[in-house]
Amino acid sequence: MEQRQRLFVCVLLALCATQSANGGNILVWYTEGSHWINMKPVLETLVDRGHQVTVLTPAASLFMNASASSGFRYEPFDVSVSLEDMEKFLEDFLHFSMYEMDHLSYLQIYIRFINMMKNDLHNSLRYLDGVLKSETIMKKLKEGNYDVLLADPIYPGSDLTAEILGIPLVFSLRFSLANNWERKCGQLPSPPSFVPSAMSKLTDKMDFSERVWNFVFYFLHDILLNSIYWHDVDQYYSEVKGTPTSACETMGRADIWLMRTYWDFDFPRPFLPNFKYVGGMHCRPAKPLPEDMEEVVQSSGDAGIVVFTLGSMIKNITREKGNMIASALAQIPQKVLWRYSGEKPETLGANTRLYNWIPQNDLLGHPKTRAFITHGGTNGIYEAIYHGVPMVGIPMFADQPGNMVHMKAKGAAVTVDLNFMTTEDLRDAINTVINEKSYKESAMRLSSMHHDRPMSALDEAIFWIEFTMRNNGAKHLRVQAHELTWYQYHSLDVLAFLLTVVLLITLLCVKACSLCLRRCCGWKGKTKTE
Amino acid sequence: MEQRQRLFVCVLLALCATQSANGGNILVWYTEGSHWINMKPVLETLVDRGHQVTVLTPAASLFMNASASSGFRYEPFDVSVSLEDMEKFLEDFLHFSMYEMDHLSYLQIYIRFINMMKNDLHNSLRYLDGVLKSETIMKKLKEGNYDVLLADPIYPGSDLTAEILGIPLVFSLRFSLANNWERKCGQLPSPPSFVPSAMSKLTDKMDFSERVWNFVFYFLHDILLNSIYWHDVDQYYSEVKGTPTSACETMGRADIWLMRTYWDFDFPRPFLPNFKYVGGMHCRPAKPLPEDMEEVVQSSGDAGIVVFTLGSMIKNITREKGNMIASALAQIPQKVLWRYSGEKPETLGANTRLYNWIPQNDLLGHPKTRAFITHGGTNGIYEAIYHGVPMVGIPMFADQPGNMVHMKAKGAAVTVDLNFMTTEDLRDAINTVINEKSYKESAMRLSSMHHDRPMSALDEAIFWIEFTMRNNGAKHLRVQAHELTWYQYHSLDVLAFLLTVVLLITLLCVKACSLCLRRCCGWKGKTKTE
Repeated sequence: MEQRQRLFVCVLLALCATQSANGGNILVWYTEGSHWINMKPVLETLVDRGHQVTVLTPAASLFMNASASSGFRYEPFDVSVSLEDMEKFLEDFLHFSMYEMDHLSYLQIYIRFINMMKNDLHNSLRYLDGVLKSETIMKKLKEGNYDVLLADPIYPGSDLTAEILGIPLVFSLRFSLANNWERKCGQLPSPPSFVPSAMSKLTDKMDFSERVWNFVFYFLHDILLNSIYWHDVDQYYSEVKGTPTSACETMGRADIWLMRTYWDFDFPRPFLPNFKYVGGMHCRPAKPLPEDMEEVVQSSGDAGIVVFTLGSMIKNITREKGNMIASALAQIPQKVLWRYSGEKPETLGANTRLYNWIPQNDLLGHPKTRAFITHGGTNGIYEAIYHGVPMVGIPMFADQPGNMVHMKAKGAAVTVDLNFMTTEDLRDAINTVINEKSYKESAMRLSSMHHDRPMSALDEAIFWIEFTMRNNGAKHLRVQAHELTWYQYHSLDVLAFLLTVVLLITLLCVKACSLCLRRCCGWKGKTKTE
Repeated sequence: MEQRQRLFVCVLLALCATQSANGGNILVWYTEGSHWINMKPVLETLVDRGHQVTVLTPAASLFMNASASSGFRYEPFDVSVSLEDMEKFLEDFLHFSMYEMDHLSYLQIYIRFINMMKNDLHNSLRYLDGVLKSETIMKKLKEGNYDVLLADPIYPGSDLTAEILGIPLVFSLRFSLANNWERKCGQLPSPPSFVPSAMSKLTDKMDFSERVWNFVFYFLHDILLNSIYWHDVDQYYSEVKGTPTSACETMGRADIWLMRTYWDFDFPRPFLPNFKYVGGMHCRPAKPLPEDMEEVVQSSGDAGIVVFTLGSMIKNITREKGNMIASALAQIPQKVLWRYSGEKPETLGANTRLYNWIPQNDLLGHPKTRAFITHGGTNGIYEAIYHGVPMVGIPMFADQPGNMVHMKAKGAAVTVDLNFMTTEDLRDAINTVINEKSYKESAMRLSSMHHDRPMSALDEAIFWIEFTMRNNGAKHLRVQAHELTWYQYHSLDVLAFLLTVVLLITLLCVKACSLCLRRCCGWKGKTKTE
């Protein structure tokens, strides 16, 4: 008898697990750079769990390599943008972010930024042509019978493709400009009074002027995105569908939003049942280092090592900066492992080794690691949090400056400015995070927060991807807010109605009173007297 | 080397698990009725996990039995309210809810309701006297070195006690009137446009008039609670602390809010990182039935059984109602197991058995169970969801009518009205949920949603209670909104400032333009011309 009851629960649980046992069919949207670096370990885990993973891969990709051996299948498609165009665009963007911004006025920065955004969107839509306007690819995708589309929405079009294929959609997102996509399309509540806009470099503790700035930041970027992003994407979607289409609404149909932060890195904020905070889902326990690297690390003695990288995008800096940095590194007692492909700086100290590539996560997880010098990308920061390593930030572009503001506010980092720092600034910053106990303690506290959750970030991400597959979506997690206009959402129509009613009642009362007074007491209104 | 890395992660995980291994020291606030029934299985699990659980138990308690054998320790305290007073109050309340409401005008209902609320609060504060104003009890609690206070805030004072003892606080809450506690004190965002107020009997899909009603419902109840609840509790807290104290602010210091719903029962809504939705945490797989009961169940054949209870509060109904209900039950092909302690109805059919008590969860988990006739309490509804059983609701008071609206909206229930239903209404309702496939399908869909989550509701609740103990709170999940005034939260000060700036700039521009025109073109303003 008891067995029978247990059987029922077991059958339910088995039903839940069926999909992962049978293996689902997952389509992955193309992405680039650190977004791809973040996505890959998740896909590898999905493959390990028996799913078939197919990755749409553009011919011109800087990071996705369709010929690379891996457990997942690549579905290459042609694009009318050349690899050289992409490299040129990236180079221009990095040069602007790293060196030009400090010499330009705010207006000039804005104009350059807008032009780059337009250029980027133009390229993105040409990529999208390669999928949506290619009969061969669309036929293949339709015949693929996919259970879910997993996409980082940094490249537009995944939502429309999922809609055309009639399959559920899971987003993996770090951030959008001023949280526009999450707020406007995902209906994520973001009160400007305590939810700092992405890229605003604010924390959740804002004084009045900061709250004004945050409000204006949201407002202006909404206008900006409406005019230079949504306008074009709406037009593209409408053209493809042959009917007026709101791209933001299409985006809002995503079943699950896997947000690549958590309350270790981010500030607590309101969210929704279909938003899952899985920051650090790419992190793993450290693996052993290559033998020669382990030797270098061990030779550091008690002083330990410092890990230094400016991320996957930056392979080179100016000779002058290189020398300045190398000179600072030469002055610290730690050994430094520096990922750097540029010309060897003349001031390079005996304690510093240059590498074309480093196993960053494994190095950060090494017990001899004392600090991490980083450009402030979320992937690297999360690896530092995972392993409890304090940071020195040299942020450059996108979310990096804001990310370092988070880490600084949480006491786990010191930040320096690439364009203004001196050798002494960098040296002192490294010494500070290593020698002042509070930085290590804060890093360990964040690490503890990161690990002390009901389920690891990776497991949670995998759970919700598989959930979406086995339930053909996640409709019961979708708020009704999606069906409301902005004024309905904020009850402005209700307020207007109630105010009108109150006003009318007041008017009627006043009229009635004056009438009564006039009739009963012979009192006459002022107007009559006049 | 690899071992070393693994060791680090293991140490972190071990650190997280230490508390549960060592066993924490948990103080539990007194509660009553279904709230206690819900709390007990959680406490039992905590005991099983090696924690010491101490339950504050008032001398006058209808449900908590300090002499009952269980794994937890009871800490009894004296109260100046007698058990008879409590029973009288409950009886009046039930009579009012079940029979009087339909004969009274809205105004009369409201006046009675307010009087009962006042009476209830008065009693609650006399209970609180038994703890906070008893030197013996407070000394014992201080010496108890508790790691956390776990409380259903239905009885006020747990937050103040946690503050005085200097220990973290975990709430377990089903709902508060118009969500006032969660919204106002917990900072839970609840846009009236799609988050129906508790007890409003609305769903998340509201037309304009319903949105107006929901808005007004929130608004009026906030005023009501301010005047008859918060005013008195503020005064009490201020008196105890000797300094002006906001009870709502004190409540807002809770580390974790365990909300006893989930998206199976509730409609998706915005929430916060320290709000955990663990509805159904009291449910367990069904255990075998007592032998004689199993015989009755098995004798039902293919038709199966119907489980019927009006909850822990209702032991009796009028003879007339009893006969009407029994007559309906006699007309269905199923066997009925009815929990009923009143006089045996004359119309009782051969298919219906009366019981003073039934193992509700075990019966609902029985494969022969076809339907559940319920008063619509959340505990029972969750047991039905857990086991996938469609429902017939006969809701009476508190959240019950609203709960049944949820279940009806989700397609798993039909509702009848105790005061207006006929024998045929009840019979048809039972036949409908049993014979129309969609009800069973909806119940199974809800059951699947309930079970298909990263962690069971009970495990999640236990995790966050233990988390709060081992981290001495959960500060990193607390939104900054707690530090803002209501106008700051809604950025009204920022809006006022920005509007003023825009107005000033516009004025200056107009002035400047008119000045320019006058000077350059000899144009003269209208005022001058006149």
